[in-house]
Amino acid sequence: MQAPAPNSQPIDKNQLVGLIDRHRPGWSLEQPFYADPAIFAIERDLWFPRQWSLVAHASEVPEKGRYIVRQLFDEEIIVVRFGDGEEDIAAYYNVCTHRGSRLCVKDGRSNLLVCPYHAWSFRLTGELQSRQDIPETVDPEALGLHRVPTKYVAGLVLCALDEAKVPDVQPVADALTSGLRENGIDRARIAARKSYPTRANWKLVLENFLECYHCRPAHPEYFRVNAHVKVTAVRDEDKAAQWQEELEAWHSVIGDAEFAKGAWEPGGLDTAPFGMHRKPIGPGRKTLSDSGQPVSCLMGGRPAYDGGETGFRLGRLSFASCANDYVTLFQMIPRSASETDVILTWLVDKDADSYIHVDAITWMWDVTTVQDKKITEDNADGVASRAYRPGPYTALESQPSFFVQAYLAEMRELVTGERPASVSQWQRPSKGYATELAAKLPQLSKTA
Amino acid sequence: MQAPAPNSQPIDKNQLVGLIDRHRPGWSLEQPFYADPAIFAIERDLWFPRQWSLVAHASEVPEKGRYIVRQLFDEEIIVVRFGDGEEDIAAYYNVCTHRGSRLCVKDGRSNLLVCPYHAWSFRLTGELQSRQDIPETVDPEALGLHRVPTKYVAGLVLCALDEAKVPDVQPVADALTSGLRENGIDRARIAARKSYPTRANWKLVLENFLECYHCRPAHPEYFRVNAHVKVTAVRDEDKAAQWQEELEAWHSVIGDAEFAKGAWEPGGLDTAPFGMHRKPIGPGRKTLSDSGQPVSCLMGGRPAYDGGETGFRLGRLSFASCANDYVTLFQMIPRSASETDVILTWLVDKDADSYIHVDAITWMWDVTTVQDKKITEDNADGVASRAYRPGPYTALESQPSFFVQAYLAEMRELVTGERPASVSQWQRPSKGYATELAAKLPQLSKTA
Amino acid sequence: MQAPAPNSQPIDKNQLVGLIDRHRPGWSLEQPFYADPAIFAIERDLWFPRQWSLVAHASEVPEKGRYIVRQLFDEEIIVVRFGDGEEDIAAYYNVCTHRGSRLCVKDGRSNLLVCPYHAWSFRLTGELQSRQDIPETVDPEALGLHRVPTKYVAGLVLCALDEAKVPDVQPVADALTSGLRENGIDRARIAARKSYPTRANWKLVLENFLECYHCRPAHPEYFRVNAHVKVTAVRDEDKAAQWQEELEAWHSVIGDAEFAKGAWEPGGLDTAPFGMHRKPIGPGRKTLSDSGQPVSCLMGGRPAYDGGETGFRLGRLSFASCANDYVTLFQMIPRSASETDVILTWLVDKDADSYIHVDAITWMWDVTTVQDKKITEDNADGVASRAYRPGPYTALESQPSFFVQAYLAEMRELVTGERPASVSQWQRPSKGYATELAAKLPQLSKTA
Repeated sequence: MQAPAPNSQPIDKNQLVGLIDRHRPGWSLEQPFYADPAIFAIERDLWFPRQWSLVAHASEVPEKGRYIVRQLFDEEIIVVRFGDGEEDIAAYYNVCTHRGSRLCVKDGRSNLLVCPYHAWSFRLTGELQSRQDIPETVDPEALGLHRVPTKYVAGLVLCALDEAKVPDVQPVADALTSGLRENGIDRARIAARKSYPTRANWKLVLENFLECYHCRPAHPEYFRVNAHVKVTAVRDEDKAAQWQEELEAWHSVIGDAEFAKGAWEPGGLDTAPFGMHRKPIGPGRKTLSDSGQPVSCLMGGRPAYDGGETGFRLGRLSFASCANDYVTLFQMIPRSASETDVILTWLVDKDADSYIHVDAITWMWDVTTVQDKKITEDNADGVASRAYRPGPYTALESQPSFFVQAYLAEMRELVTGERPASVSQWQRPSKGYATELAAKLPQLSKTA
Repeated sequence: MQAPAPNSQPIDKNQLVGLIDRHRPGWSLEQPFYADPAIFAIERDLWFPRQWSLVAHASEVPEKGRYIVRQLFDEEIIVVRFGDGEEDIAAYYNVCTHRGSRLCVKDGRSNLLVCPYHAWSFRLTGELQSRQDIPETVDPEALGLHRVPTKYVAGLVLCALDEAKVPDVQPVADALTSGLRENGIDRARIAARKSYPTRANWKLVLENFLECYHCRPAHPEYFRVNAHVKVTAVRDEDKAAQWQEELEAWHSVIGDAEFAKGAWEPGGLDTAPFGMHRKPIGPGRKTLSDSGQPVSCLMGGRPAYDGGETGFRLGRLSFASCANDYVTLFQMIPRSASETDVILTWLVDKDADSYIHVDAITWMWDVTTVQDKKITEDNADGVASRAYRPGPYTALESQPSFFVQAYLAEMRELVTGERPASVSQWQRPSKGYATELAAKLPQLSKTA
Repeated sequence: MQAPAPNSQPIDKNQLVGLIDRHRPGWSLEQPFYADPAIFAIERDLWFPRQWSLVAHASEVPEKGRYIVRQLFDEEIIVVRFGDGEEDIAAYYNVCTHRGSRLCVKDGRSNLLVCPYHAWSFRLTGELQSRQDIPETVDPEALGLHRVPTKYVAGLVLCALDEAKVPDVQPVADALTSGLRENGIDRARIAARKSYPTRANWKLVLENFLECYHCRPAHPEYFRVNAHVKVTAVRDEDKAAQWQEELEAWHSVIGDAEFAKGAWEPGGLDTAPFGMHRKPIGPGRKTLSDSGQPVSCLMGGRPAYDGGETGFRLGRLSFASCANDYVTLFQMIPRSASETDVILTWLVDKDADSYIHVDAITWMWDVTTVQDKKITEDNADGVASRAYRPGPYTALESQPSFFVQAYLAEMRELVTGERPASVSQWQRPSKGYATELAAKLPQLSKTA
């Protein structure tokens, strides 16, 4: 009789590399990647610190001294406007350097950040202000707040866990600022925010977001409104041709310059991923609403509705969808091996009427995200079974397949310190159904 | 000073074998067996796959296409009737072979099992039906559902986790089918079902079920109704003689053939345990009800009430108690090192009036199981203490003592791969108080 | 690129010693001491068994046969009065020696302790009473209840986990009995009890209790009522001088004998720590109430209000504050790496009117402990961050700093078996602000 060893030991580095090396390209991950707290602990130590994430909209800290408490992975941070310049936003770990207490327990406004425990106070720029009680042998200059790398990009605030490990964010700003401004993100205000705590590993949440193959069975509203699902949810040459005609019709209306706008950087350990693409929502639709009719005023100085949607990817875990009159921001926040917070924020123009219909603005992505939460939790339940085996991604799931490849290559490099022999490249889906837009927001392709 | 090593490491194979080898026969288990998640993980990997369990009554899938979602150990399975034959019942892990989603989220009826995520569909016999999106390099024949070994036995559906590891179930069917049919289980319908989630290790739940020494202090209703507790709850020669007289009186009424019915297989790693025995409920009692009077119509074509109870054991973790007019099924489902679901299902004849008194039917085993849940949770609390030491089983607890011996021998063999030198045999309790029925349902002895 | 090893393995002995050895005196602990379940497991095995804790007031078991169920660290114990003598109190683990069930599920009164499972019964002195079912090969004398070391000290019941490991408690009784009696604790009754389950490691709870530096920002009521916070919450030579004058004024009123009362034993692995000190509450205040006016009758035969507070330390985790007319007992009960139960019990004289105003009696310490719970939970949240680093204790936090040093030295000795080279001594805070009382209750200094 075979005597398997008890498997109650946490996974170690060699086992992890073994799991990575036996992965078959084009197939979903082995179970431990979706469920094992030990792998989440490794991601927390090695992979999360490499990522930039969207943490706030700049309108949340409108003037000097305003601060907000937000979540960055498993960490609570304080985002604060420390000066009068547009980009004068800093962020700190919400940890007092005295005995480690949380410094701010809620959003507020102040000239100093004062700890509620022993009243140690810090300047908006992070330095310790109150120094009278410090022992003489201790350098108060070393007791400033722990800084969180922070970048303002056209109204959005991006943060990362570790200055020393995170890639340069400037290329993201260079590539996307103009597009974000054209969609009015820098001159917006928050209309609504909703959190969807999802009982699933963050990679299941992300894979779900990266493909629209499930849109027909799982998202009747999204399927009805969005023309692109003709090619992202079904392999059908007739529908692909029809979508191509719609794209061309839109092209002729908006012109070459608008049509060609896009950006695409797949990213890696040393390069922040980003992307931008444009596409028409669907025939006769001005915006991403139930009726297709406007739900707020035009954003970004746009002269008229053109019926397009601009999708942005900001790092691995943050996205934005811009209709002509409202914007949806998406944050995916890993909380544990089996919990991910998904937060959606809806923006409108800062001068939009106060009587805008919030329900009409949030409808499309709220109904879709509620469905995705349920789908993804059912996915997590099934993946936890001893019967789960990696399954094949179809051609309509090329983006999750690419993500999984990239993720494994990065994890291997982080754990072993070895550079990968060759970096896999995302391949455009094969001809016939996806020479055009091939996936749900955000698109990885440069053309739209 | 002695310096004990920190004990925060999970138990390993050698430690487990050491724990097993220091067990004293006749004494309860060491603490880790009742509390340690690492031992539960080993049981999950090695011991649970060896067991057949009751998962449903066949009336729950009455016609082709009906499927139900049920629990098998820590796994969710789909039980489905795939054809028109009585035994045409199959079961699958509730895991889609595409990306691992739960396939069925509730009971239903369909010609195909369709995944709610990407609409992959499977035939009732498990093969993948929808194949159009599968990559060309992938064999769709390899993407059928993961089968769960399933056996129909006279109205009951038994399942196991792993075809390769579970013993042959045919001897169980051969031994028990006739008895189950005589009690009408194959022609029954469900009158009630109730779940008793119990915050205790499954072995504490089972040990409680296997002895009636606790019936006098803990089960006043059960003690009052059941005559056999005279010998199973108290060591008293006078009471034993009185019980013997009652047995003999019942014998003279029901005749030799009825009295001698029984079966007994202690079971092991390669043999599924089972058992059947009969005994009288108590003087003047027709059925297991508060008053002793009928609570439904006679089952199994029985011509008249004979006041007996037939007890069945189906594997290690499933039992049935058959009074003349209703049946109680017992499922014990280990969920974690400290959680066990106990599910009771009450059956009546399929043609029983719709106005049967469900409360009268469920009374005896509901009141008893509610008490056992409390007792067992208190047992679990005490066993978790650093002061807990194995204690001696008394003569009235010979069945839990035997179970513990068998369990340890099996675990040792599973972990080491070594055949045990000698297999312990359950000994009949010593003379004087238990030459007859010595324990609460189900009885391990052949005679009744 | 550096490739850090995955850190998902539990901490081992060498890592723990490494953490201890890199501690800088005067700085708070490394994160794992405040958060890691593996370190809690080591404390549970090695450090907790060295500690005496307050578990009850003797009035809770007023006569022979009365028993109560209480918490001692992570264990449930039964405290029982087994005889008519004042000190005839014993305690047992709440574990039946038969199959390990909890023996008592609530407080009660009985001549025997009877297990609800199988009705095994035990004498109040712990021996097994019911022996008829015991197998002949088993010695019933070996089946008595597991004793918990217990000591009656002037109305208080102290217990410890392990007779073999706990230091002698007699010096505590010798040093404190007279003081406890003078404050009427031996002739008291319970007026109120309240539990404050705190989501924080027990060391954070204790550090909070051991300093008053936080009293000004965090405890406005406590700060207003208690004169000593002039020197324990602020470094201010003028306030220190003012406090010195108040002390001297009180001295002249109460006389040399009263003023000099005190005791101080810092304790260690082989010596139970204890302490006693006295101080005035504040100008014009008779007791520790909102108005400063009496809230019950005088205790301990005291002839008149003298406006003092006597503080006691009983081991590491138990304290008492005695105003002239009521007493507050403090129990800190570690429950897990991140949970601590804090229980406060308010005593009044046993002959106090039944219409005493309980809200007035509990006011000071209830409002303060509710605040401390919030503060300490925020501290635990911050300490769990990857940005947390040990911070410097200020001169006003000399007691937590001393505790941390002592704790680490003891843990090192327990884990390695090596005697520490030199035992650190608590140093009086430096001159100028704390030649007198330097900390919130209880004071480590001998003089008051």
